[in-house]
Amino acid sequence: MPQDVRFDLPFRTPVSAHLESAREHHLRWVWERGLVRSRAGFEEYRSWDLPEAAARTYPHASADDLVVLMNWFSLAFLFDDQFDTASPDRADRIAEVARELIATPLRPAGTAPRVVCPITVAWAEVWTHLSHGMSLAWRTRFAASWGRFLVAHTEEVDLAARGLAGTLGLAEYAEFRRRTVGIHHSIDAGERSRGFEVPPQVQAHELMVRMRDLAADTIGFMNDIHSFERERRRGDGHNLIAVLHRQRGSTWEEATAEAYRMTRDRLDEYLALEARVPRMCEELGLDAEQRVRVRMGVEAIQHWISGNYEWALTSGRYAAAKDGPAVTAELAGKGSLDDLLVV
Amino acid sequence: MPQDVRFDLPFRTPVSAHLESAREHHLRWVWERGLVRSRAGFEEYRSWDLPEAAARTYPHASADDLVVLMNWFSLAFLFDDQFDTASPDRADRIAEVARELIATPLRPAGTAPRVVCPITVAWAEVWTHLSHGMSLAWRTRFAASWGRFLVAHTEEVDLAARGLAGTLGLAEYAEFRRRTVGIHHSIDAGERSRGFEVPPQVQAHELMVRMRDLAADTIGFMNDIHSFERERRRGDGHNLIAVLHRQRGSTWEEATAEAYRMTRDRLDEYLALEARVPRMCEELGLDAEQRVRVRMGVEAIQHWISGNYEWALTSGRYAAAKDGPAVTAELAGKGSLDDLLVV
Repeated sequence: MPQDVRFDLPFRTPVSAHLESAREHHLRWVWERGLVRSRAGFEEYRSWDLPEAAARTYPHASADDLVVLMNWFSLAFLFDDQFDTASPDRADRIAEVARELIATPLRPAGTAPRVVCPITVAWAEVWTHLSHGMSLAWRTRFAASWGRFLVAHTEEVDLAARGLAGTLGLAEYAEFRRRTVGIHHSIDAGERSRGFEVPPQVQAHELMVRMRDLAADTIGFMNDIHSFERERRRGDGHNLIAVLHRQRGSTWEEATAEAYRMTRDRLDEYLALEARVPRMCEELGLDAEQRVRVRMGVEAIQHWISGNYEWALTSGRYAAAKDGPAVTAELAGKGSLDDLLVV
Repeated sequence: MPQDVRFDLPFRTPVSAHLESAREHHLRWVWERGLVRSRAGFEEYRSWDLPEAAARTYPHASADDLVVLMNWFSLAFLFDDQFDTASPDRADRIAEVARELIATPLRPAGTAPRVVCPITVAWAEVWTHLSHGMSLAWRTRFAASWGRFLVAHTEEVDLAARGLAGTLGLAEYAEFRRRTVGIHHSIDAGERSRGFEVPPQVQAHELMVRMRDLAADTIGFMNDIHSFERERRRGDGHNLIAVLHRQRGSTWEEATAEAYRMTRDRLDEYLALEARVPRMCEELGLDAEQRVRVRMGVEAIQHWISGNYEWALTSGRYAAAKDGPAVTAELAGKGSLDDLLVV
């Protein structure tokens, strides 16, 4: 039962006090914006409880901002599921929508999308709020992090469309996973959620670059473990357990144990680097106010590692024992109940 | 004769000693990569003398790097001309290719393009060289600068396709011009051409952000003056002189004189800010080595203002008195002699 696999994390993060009120606003928004289009799609979406993920990963966001962050999660997760193995031609439309999503943060905030569908319209609206008050340097960093994730997502879909989803070797897969997990922009959004920015020379420092990569690896591998049953049901070979099982000829249990060890190694390496942050601040000659922003930047990473972990343990998205229309669709090779790439 | 309009610049920049040898390699590359496809297209392209522009704007590049920079110029300028007022449907293909060009720097270097045409294939090749040895922070900044330019280019084409090219007001046009001129990424490339990087806290500082914007305005307005005859011939209303002529009901001479004054104002404002750079370095507590990199960063801006100016005065691209196949095509509403958006 991989969704139950527990990790012993050395930090815990708070949960936003705005969770319940924000969830209600958010679910109304998802329906009104056409991000779910059927009753079954809505029920499936609600079972994932993304509002809890947002409330755990961005615990310090204001009530209004938390709704925006939930709205953002919804379009990103729902877009992630739009590929149907049953219709490989759909890969081109996914690539087109992904490129449009990349363009949005490069346009002046408030610009209407050029490729129109519920996902792109929702993202243009969310971006107007998400970018509000942030510097050019932050918007630049977010746009690139988000863009790298979306091009990797297109590569993932293209591999699936060509029947090559399960063919990457272990090293290649680990590198790929760092790009598809979408953590870099999620951490960037932590600054927006708390109204601060990490000093640019810190974001550019090799220690912080490496910490961000290791956090992405840790969360990506954890997610592969917790989502394993869902992905097996969907025939998705892009999963660390599946790669280890195939590459090493090990049993599913052995592969799961090895995936656990690999995750733990990345987390330990992350923690070892975290301990070096004070020395980096010294080396860069940061003042007290800048060090506060560095600390909050590190907390933004911790909130993501811990908050995502706590949410994944119980989210209906990754449930193994599950039935209903979503499972029927998945077994038929359909990525989602509702088509969100058409007007 | 706007191409002759002279500005008195307070700095001059050297010309690369590699110009002649690099030009030869470059022209062969342009032909081999199918970036020109007809004899007439080649002759027209050669008359622009982009190699001189590269040798003046990146005077410190190595011989090999200078060829790469010329190659980059060729695909950017040639892509810029791919819209035909005679075929407005072409706007969708231009947008698709632009989005693909945006995606390239977000992928691991060396990845093949997903939308294939001579422009995208050439850019993937150039990017592999252009990004070589540069930090994640630089690649992030370049990718966003480049992406902002390309989305603005698509907006420009979309306005033209809807017959709205000449409808922007003066303030709106000035803001738009800053985005369409493509100077931010051109200045970013200056760091690559000389093998250094401006410290990230300087790039993020409001003084540098403003200096980069003012350099973009100065070069954009100068370009509008020097390219005026070409753009009038092509029916392109996105030109400062044309906007002033229309908005103020002034004669062409008056509009040109006003455009000159506006350009001079932006340049003066840039120069006033440049004088504040030492104080910014003090404020940021930069050491001697970092100050050298800041100085080279300012020189990269100067090289662009001055180098682009010197080149534009004589480039065949902006010649007023001109005939031949390129002019015939322009008068017929065709943006270029060769279609570079198909395989």
